[in-house]
Formats: sequence, structure tokens, C-alpha cells
Amino acid sequence: MVEAFDAVDIIIAKRDKHELSTEQINWLIDAYTRGFVADEQMSAFAMAVVLNGMNRREIRDFTLAMIASGERMNFSSLSKATTDKHSTGGVGDKITLPLAPLVASYGVAVPQLSGRGLGHTGGTLDKLESIKGWQANISNERMFEILEEVGAVVCAAGSGLAPADKKLYALRDATGTVEAQPLIASSIMSKKIAEGTGALVLDVKYGTGAFMKTKERATELANIMVDLGTDAGVKTAAFITNMNTPLGLAIGNANEVRESVEVLAGGGPADVVELTVALARKMLALAGVEGVDPAENLQNGKAMDSWRQMITAQSGDPDASLPVAKHSNTYYAEADGYISRQDALSFGYAAWRLGAGRARQQDPVIHAAGIDLLVKPGDKVTKGQAIYVMHAEDEAKFARAEESLIGALDISAEWVEPEPIIAAEIG
Amino acid sequence: MVEAFDAVDIIIAKRDKHELSTEQINWLIDAYTRGFVADEQMSAFAMAVVLNGMNRREIRDFTLAMIASGERMNFSSLSKATTDKHSTGGVGDKITLPLAPLVASYGVAVPQLSGRGLGHTGGTLDKLESIKGWQANISNERMFEILEEVGAVVCAAGSGLAPADKKLYALRDATGTVEAQPLIASSIMSKKIAEGTGALVLDVKYGTGAFMKTKERATELANIMVDLGTDAGVKTAAFITNMNTPLGLAIGNANEVRESVEVLAGGGPADVVELTVALARKMLALAGVEGVDPAENLQNGKAMDSWRQMITAQSGDPDASLPVAKHSNTYYAEADGYISRQDALSFGYAAWRLGAGRARQQDPVIHAAGIDLLVKPGDKVTKGQAIYVMHAEDEAKFARAEESLIGALDISAEWVEPEPIIAAEIG
Repeated sequence: MVEAFDAVDIIIAKRDKHELSTEQINWLIDAYTRGFVADEQMSAFAMAVVLNGMNRREIRDFTLAMIASGERMNFSSLSKATTDKHSTGGVGDKITLPLAPLVASYGVAVPQLSGRGLGHTGGTLDKLESIKGWQANISNERMFEILEEVGAVVCAAGSGLAPADKKLYALRDATGTVEAQPLIASSIMSKKIAEGTGALVLDVKYGTGAFMKTKERATELANIMVDLGTDAGVKTAAFITNMNTPLGLAIGNANEVRESVEVLAGGGPADVVELTVALARKMLALAGVEGVDPAENLQNGKAMDSWRQMITAQSGDPDASLPVAKHSNTYYAEADGYISRQDALSFGYAAWRLGAGRARQQDPVIHAAGIDLLVKPGDKVTKGQAIYVMHAEDEAKFARAEESLIGALDISAEWVEPEPIIAAEIG
Repeated sequence: MVEAFDAVDIIIAKRDKHELSTEQINWLIDAYTRGFVADEQMSAFAMAVVLNGMNRREIRDFTLAMIASGERMNFSSLSKATTDKHSTGGVGDKITLPLAPLVASYGVAVPQLSGRGLGHTGGTLDKLESIKGWQANISNERMFEILEEVGAVVCAAGSGLAPADKKLYALRDATGTVEAQPLIASSIMSKKIAEGTGALVLDVKYGTGAFMKTKERATELANIMVDLGTDAGVKTAAFITNMNTPLGLAIGNANEVRESVEVLAGGGPADVVELTVALARKMLALAGVEGVDPAENLQNGKAMDSWRQMITAQSGDPDASLPVAKHSNTYYAEADGYISRQDALSFGYAAWRLGAGRARQQDPVIHAAGIDLLVKPGDKVTKGQAIYVMHAEDEAKFARAEESLIGALDISAEWVEPEPIIAAEIG
């Protein structure tokens, strides 16, 4: 190998707040992917980035280098335009489930490569696996077929996409270097750009249940990512959305599928419907479909038809009954008043402890476990009224989940206006 | 193992500028030494320290934890007080050679555990190995015997002293995390304190040929180290000394021994004599010997007697002739005037390229290689006058060494006062 650069020089340059050249960044990512740059060098570099940042050009080069580390999908042979959505993750976030078939029902392809959950945020694949027979792993050929015939695919991302990002992400997790906007943005966008979509709408969440705790940090990240997508030729837009409160009423896996089907049937919680329709409208607009009201296809059954085709295409049975937990426990309001706070992080932790999430990558999730909320912020409650129900396969889990919910819900005498679900739109 | 702490939490705490507790630092160093904290975690931590620093309490705890990672020597059974010197390294720095026997000649023990050179700075052990028969590796028992009988020992530090520092230093070298005052200070002081000396004088160099480029950075480092020594019960003082110009006239190995013997014989370059006498006076004072003028024992032969005993005790022959290089090349002044600059780093690189230093830990050094300066800053020269001589075993080395010296020496029409060798004294 011709060592055009030296890892120590590049680390020192970033440590000393110098701008890195495109060549330096390309060399670093390539050498790291091939194993010529050691983990201890890359983690020192990542810490320097956490503390000293990267500018727009560096972030773009870093992202392009990660894309170049692996294969890149190309959907140009499809007869349809492609459009995709990415959420930074939250509690009760099942939006992909109604959204992908809704958008597909307008003749646009949605190649949604998803992940599994870790910690208190759920994963779309885990949720869909609640459905009898449904398969996350399909071949690229089958993916193209389904996109052409049905329009919507939700499947596991192949390991060939942005392998440098996979390696770097695992390292960042172990070295306290996850929290850097440039690294978060390039990690998300390298995968999304490598997936080959023509348009992309980002759902960047802020609040207690989100990775970004403040609206400002979420907006900063969204701006970096919209720039990255745009620079890479992907039509990109973003919504900044609220994650101080769980999304919808269901938190878990099977119950989130149930709630998604309700939305596809024209019902469902108002916040889930509002966000699904807003994201669908933007995804369609970026794919060239303007002047439609996506709420219509939720009402007229077309989105539901797409859903059934999408599930069937991946060997799932849309009519099979969803798993139900052995044990349920109902919890009641301790006072009269209005729900003024329903903390997303606490409910996320509680559902996780019930078995809906996993602590380690290799753990299974329990599809029937989770929480059904019976009220939302702004709702009036009376003392003794049922306000949420927990579900678990093992009764011993309730106590630990209850601990997570101490102080998680406020009931106030005065009505407090709930925060809007969509805080801002970018691009 | 009971995992009282988590490496990621400690890394994140330092990344986010929090003060680490004594328990966190102890756990981190112990777990790193035992291999429970991975290199990639420690390098991310080191980068966070480079960028966010550590306070006096953290540095002290870090140093004590590194000392606790290995054995600690104890010289309390000796009939003499102990005193030691540490230099941060420079070009032509042979001061240990005349200094250790000089101090020993006043009845104080000098247990000097030294290292080998790397890059442009030479190592004391490499220099002494120019002497026929001389052995760097001696047992602890023999070390005690020599200290009792002769008073001065210069030997290789055992691997049992501060093993955490050895592991961390190699990691820092590969990850761009060498340049952090807290890490430099704790690395030096953990070894020196573990060596068990009762008093310690630090020679902290600044300038082009030194690790610290400015007087301010050197003073900052010296203050941290003096605090560290004092906090650990070692009487500690420091000199801030000039390394913009090579020390003395000889740069190499055998020629530096030759120059040291000249100093012990009452001659030698003024700067070497001045620094040797100042350091000796301070080392003696800290060891309780006041009111003597160390220059006397250089003049009356007592320091030379000590030197001969010291060399003989470690199997060296003080009367053997020193190696002489096969090839020498003399260089001449290009103008009339006064030497106004003689760049230490350039001359250090040149000597290194001639074979006097090593690029990798495992490389040998060539004892006869090096440079003899014939003039020093402030000296008047005439065009065509010989100003330095290079020595090498291989004639091909001269061209590369000459490259290092382009622009390394200025001759000005007006006399410029040379910078003093000692800039300041601390403690």
C-alpha cells in the first residue's frame, strides 16, 4: 500500500482545529475500512471531531468516503420515482408502517431499509416481525420486484452498504464519541445515500425520548443532513418533530402494528395521522407528485390495500392475529385534572423493561410486550380512571417498569395546551 | 471483577469537561493496566484530556494511579540521601554524564534511571554505551551496592515501574495524544516518583530542539511537575532552560562522552559547565548539602574520580578509547560576521540522520556518528573558517544530514547577545 498520509498527522490536524483535505479524509476512511488505521487511532480522531467539529465540506467528504467504502444501490431501472423517510428514532414511532404503503399507493416507490431497536427506541423491523410469517431479509432482486409491483418495501439493510460506518458506529458506541453532530449526520446520511433513493424526508426528533434533547440541536442536525443530501444529489427535506411525549397511544411492537393498521383504516391517534400525512405529502412532492392530499388514501382504503400487498410480498399474513401478552396491568389516575406531561423517555424505558426492547444487539424482543396509553396530554381525567395498560409475558417485569414511570406523568388542575407534533420544516 | 465504573461514562465525563473523582481515575488506570479498558477507549480518553485538560487534583491522582500500577523503589535503607535529575530532552544534552558523578562526589546518592533516545533527542544510555564494556542493565541489588559505594548509578529503568505509563505512552504516540501537559507531566513524574528518589531537579527545556517550543509551555509543565513531586513527598525543583541552540559543542554519542569527560576534567563548553553546576547545586541543596560550590569538585578531580568509579562499577573501561567514525566532513563559514543562530532542531535532525539517533525503538545507534560544533552563537567567524564537522560510518549519510542544516545557521554582521542557558528556576 502506498501510504500517502499518516493517521497520526490527520488526528493531530483535527486535534489542532485544522481543516482536513478531501484526500486526507478519503485516505483515513479507506485505510480504516481496510484495517490499516487502528481502532485506537480512529477513536482518538472521533473524540477530536466531537470536541472540534467539522465544517460542511469536511462532513460531505467524510460522508462520501463512507459511501465509497461499500456498494451503492441504484434504482434508476425502476419505472417509478423513489422516495424514502428516515427518523432519528423515538418512543412509539411506528410512522414507517402506515407511511410506506400510503406513499406507495400514489405510484411512488419507497425502498425503506430499516434497522432494529436498541435501548428505549424501537426498531421498525422488530415491529413488523410481530406479523406472522413476515420476513425482513429479502434479496436485492426480490426488493426490485416488490418495488415495481407493490411500491413499498421495508427490509434489513445489506451489510455491503457503508461498511466503514458500521465499523465506526460500533467503535463510537464504546468510546464515548457518539454525540457529535458531524458523525451522527454522516452516519445516517451515508447509509441513506448509499441506499440509492432519489428523494429523502428526515424526521428529526427532539425531546426527552429523542437522541437530540433540544429543538436547537435537532435543527442543527437537520440542517447538516439536508445539506449533505442536497450536496449528494438527493432531494432532501426535514421535519423537526416533538418527542417529549410518546407518538400515538401504542408503545411496543405488536400493539404498534395494531395502531398502524387503525391509521391505514382511516382511524388512529391524531398525532400519528398528522405526522404520517405531512411526511407523505413531502415525500410525494419531492418525488414529483404534487397536489394530492394523502389523507384521502387513508380514508378510501387504497393505503390499506398497499399495506396488505406489502406485508404479503414479504411472506407476512396481514389477516393473522397479532400476539397478545399473557399478563396485563392497568394503571389509574391519582387525581382529577388534565394530563399536562407524559414523559416519552420514561415510557420508552418502561416498555423496554417490559421486554419490548433489547439491551444488547443479540437479544430478542418480546413482540407482545409494551404499553397502551389510554390518554394523551391535554386529555381530561378523573381520579381512578384507567390511563395506561402494561403488557408483559412475565409478571415480574411490571415492578421494574413501574419504577421507570415514577414522576413520568403530571395531572394539572388547569388545562395546558399540548405541544404541536411538528415544530418546523426545513428544505 | 466488580465493575465499579464504566469506561464510557468516564470518557464522556472528561469529554463534557467534568472533574473526575479519585475513584474513577484509580479504576480507569487499573482496568487499563489489566486490559479491561481497551486501547480505543483509552485513546479517546487521552484525546479528551488533550483538549479539555485535568486539574491539579486529577493530575495528582492520575500520577499516583500510574505509580500504583507497578512496583515502587525505596532507598531508605541507604546510608545516604538520594537526589535525581530529569531532563525533558534536547539536542546535545549530555548533562547527566558529568552531573551524576559530580553530585555523588559530595556524598549524596544519584539513582539515575535513564532511557534511550528516539528521534532527534539522544538517550543517556546510548551515550554511555559508547564506552567499552559499559552495561546499562544491572540488578536492583547491584544498584544499591553501587549507590552505597560509589554514589552514582545510571541504568535502564526496570519494566516493573509504572507499567500503566509504558502502555499509555506507546498508545499516545500512535494516536496524536502526546501533547497534553497533564499526560506529559504524569508520565514523567510517575516514573520518577516510582524510582524512589528523595529529591528531584527537573530540567525543563524550551525551544526548537525541545519538546516544548515556548518558555510559557515549559514553565506551565514545570509548575505541574513541581506540584506533583511536592504532593507526592519528593522535594522537587525545576529549571527552565534554553534549547534553541544545541547544548555544548558535541551532538552524538561518543563525542558527547568525550565532552563530558572534558567537563569533569575542569574544562568543557561554558554552557555545559554552567548548567551542570547549577543543577548539581540544586540537587545537593534538596538533599541537605548546602554551602558548597560544585564547580570545585570539577576543578580538583573529585568528580572525575567519581566518574571513573561509576563507569568501572558498571563494567566500563574509563581509559578505553572512544569509537571514531570512518568518515568526517568539515563545513565552513560562508560569510564574515557573528553566529547569531544555530538551530537546535536542525542540528538534532542532522545528527540523527548521520546515525547518532534511531527512528524506531528497535533500531541500533551508531556511537561514532554525530556532529562536533566548532563555534557557538555569539562567536566571531571569518569566511572560510571551519564551523562544524560531521561524522558518519557511511559517506552517503552526509547529503541527507546536510539537507537538515539548510538555513540552520545564521551569520550576522552585528553581534547579537546569545540567549542565557538558564531562563528561570522554580521551587
